[in-house]
Amino acid sequence: MSVKLPPPTIEWIGGLDGYVELIDQTRLPEKLVKLQLRQVEPVWEAIKSLRVRGAPAIGIAAAMGAVLGVRNFSGTDRTTFLRAFDEVADYLASSRPTAVNLTWALSRLRECAKCEISADIATLKQRLLDEAKTIRDEDEAMCRAIGRHGQALICEHAGILTHCNAGSLATARYGTALAPMYAAHELNRYFRVFVDETRPLLQGSRLTAWELHEAGIESVLICDNMAGSLMQSGKIDLVITGADRIAANGDVANKIGTYALAVLAGAHGIPFYVAAPSSTFDLSLHDGSKIPIEQRDPDEVRSGFGCMTAPADAPCYNPAFDVTPANFVRGIITERGIIEPVCAKAIAAIFQSS
Amino acid sequence: MSVKLPPPTIEWIGGLDGYVELIDQTRLPEKLVKLQLRQVEPVWEAIKSLRVRGAPAIGIAAAMGAVLGVRNFSGTDRTTFLRAFDEVADYLASSRPTAVNLTWALSRLRECAKCEISADIATLKQRLLDEAKTIRDEDEAMCRAIGRHGQALICEHAGILTHCNAGSLATARYGTALAPMYAAHELNRYFRVFVDETRPLLQGSRLTAWELHEAGIESVLICDNMAGSLMQSGKIDLVITGADRIAANGDVANKIGTYALAVLAGAHGIPFYVAAPSSTFDLSLHDGSKIPIEQRDPDEVRSGFGCMTAPADAPCYNPAFDVTPANFVRGIITERGIIEPVCAKAIAAIFQSS
Repeated sequence: MSVKLPPPTIEWIGGLDGYVELIDQTRLPEKLVKLQLRQVEPVWEAIKSLRVRGAPAIGIAAAMGAVLGVRNFSGTDRTTFLRAFDEVADYLASSRPTAVNLTWALSRLRECAKCEISADIATLKQRLLDEAKTIRDEDEAMCRAIGRHGQALICEHAGILTHCNAGSLATARYGTALAPMYAAHELNRYFRVFVDETRPLLQGSRLTAWELHEAGIESVLICDNMAGSLMQSGKIDLVITGADRIAANGDVANKIGTYALAVLAGAHGIPFYVAAPSSTFDLSLHDGSKIPIEQRDPDEVRSGFGCMTAPADAPCYNPAFDVTPANFVRGIITERGIIEPVCAKAIAAIFQSS
Repeated sequence: MSVKLPPPTIEWIGGLDGYVELIDQTRLPEKLVKLQLRQVEPVWEAIKSLRVRGAPAIGIAAAMGAVLGVRNFSGTDRTTFLRAFDEVADYLASSRPTAVNLTWALSRLRECAKCEISADIATLKQRLLDEAKTIRDEDEAMCRAIGRHGQALICEHAGILTHCNAGSLATARYGTALAPMYAAHELNRYFRVFVDETRPLLQGSRLTAWELHEAGIESVLICDNMAGSLMQSGKIDLVITGADRIAANGDVANKIGTYALAVLAGAHGIPFYVAAPSSTFDLSLHDGSKIPIEQRDPDEVRSGFGCMTAPADAPCYNPAFDVTPANFVRGIITERGIIEPVCAKAIAAIFQSS
């Protein structure tokens, strides 16, 4: 039986005169629209308008966008070229100022360009494209490694619960939390994924339900408040979510609602796993209490879907993330292996071994 | 300081030539529209279209609607009048066939009419109106009694969490879960209510946030998945929800999401209370396992906000209720007093004492 896989989220097609192809995530779940972008401005717009979202995918888009921005540079002076690159990079960085992967990817390209001291402009351009493609390929490889390690947790006929979208659409391909599911799917294992819709922005229903469906993985969409009842009924064997930041002791910041799932999983004896690359760890933070929690626009809660669902002036509490203490996390699935049990020592060890 | 109270949900204005006035709940939260209904057909339509909802409020609407349906009966024959009443009652009962309070209220009027053997038609009509008003007044008195017993649980500066709408809008006035809050508010106690929006149908954001706001009670709207994080942060001192059915051992069926709140409250040492009149108890059920759970239309989950928020054919799990085992419930606030601890013996005792 041939197994379907999710389509690539973002790719560079062709050589230096090629283009960036990405899935327009604002059109999902209604329509799969692939955009072909040949200039830097539409890439800026795609990041700004969330056509591409998810930290790793944004980083890749920025790197490829920077290449588009300088590939038509017509001079021969290296310093002028590097200045032009910096301008393009600053412009791209302004699309979503707080996205860490965006500036990380642009810095990586900038470093790469600066290192090639003796190269001519044509070579420099090619080198930048190669580096952007490498960033993408490394991301896919990292997701595959997470999948390889994590798939062993998924038994035949398992019921798995996930939250938000830590899937293929947030990365080059395969995702983090969903990577073990794609890997188990490739091994022809049968399982079922329950997808939290993930209010207020519904990344679960709009994106996760869509991509699992595309890949032919059986999924069931639920409202967030149904997860507890599902666990009670014995339908959930395993919870896997992504992470936005992980402290040195294993406390996990992730999409709001993750903490409640972890507590509920604990109360039902269901293992709760987090899947994230090692770059998600912030070893400078002793624990999760120092992770800043962004409060977002109350209108996401009051009227997020084109109609007013609450009094217009109703005060709202709308944190983007919560922090799950390490003791609720059974294990953290990284590209280097599974950290289990989760504690400062085990986390430090996985970094020392690299 | 004068304290505001929620407006009455449904009332009979004037004498036998008067009318039914009710809040059109489909217009909330955008607009407070009071409908004045003078015939039975618009009452049927109001129940059918959820302009009036909540089991007790539906019962009152049906009783008053039946009076509207027979008040212009022009004959003098008692048997013909009773037949006409039965026809009107059957018609009203068809508006929402599964609503228990609806048929209960109509049966009560039918019994009342049958008992008045020697009365002439004019007296019979007046007797039916009096009975319909009594049903309404009894409901309000019951809600007030729940409020009186429950208000003592609400300390100055308390943070209270509630789910769905077990409020004034679901009853004649004051509600069940919200009744203790209105009572504490009348005592000038200051507290804050966190309101779960309650997906998929958003009764929390559309109705509860609205009625608390109208009464001048400080409330904060949240998405359902934020409740755990709020408990973690120490902002919740008490949870109060309503109930749809309570078994003899104290297991509580209520709006989906209630069970998860109860587990989360337990994990944080926060008392979880249920407020419900004694008519909510079904002593024929030994425990909650026999309570049937209605599965509802998947489109409530996939496209509840007027736009498609998930793939059109995404399978969904959409139970209307869940069952919270009695051991998670600190106490049940009834019009007869608070049952605490919750167990079969204590529940039986409150029924024997009446």
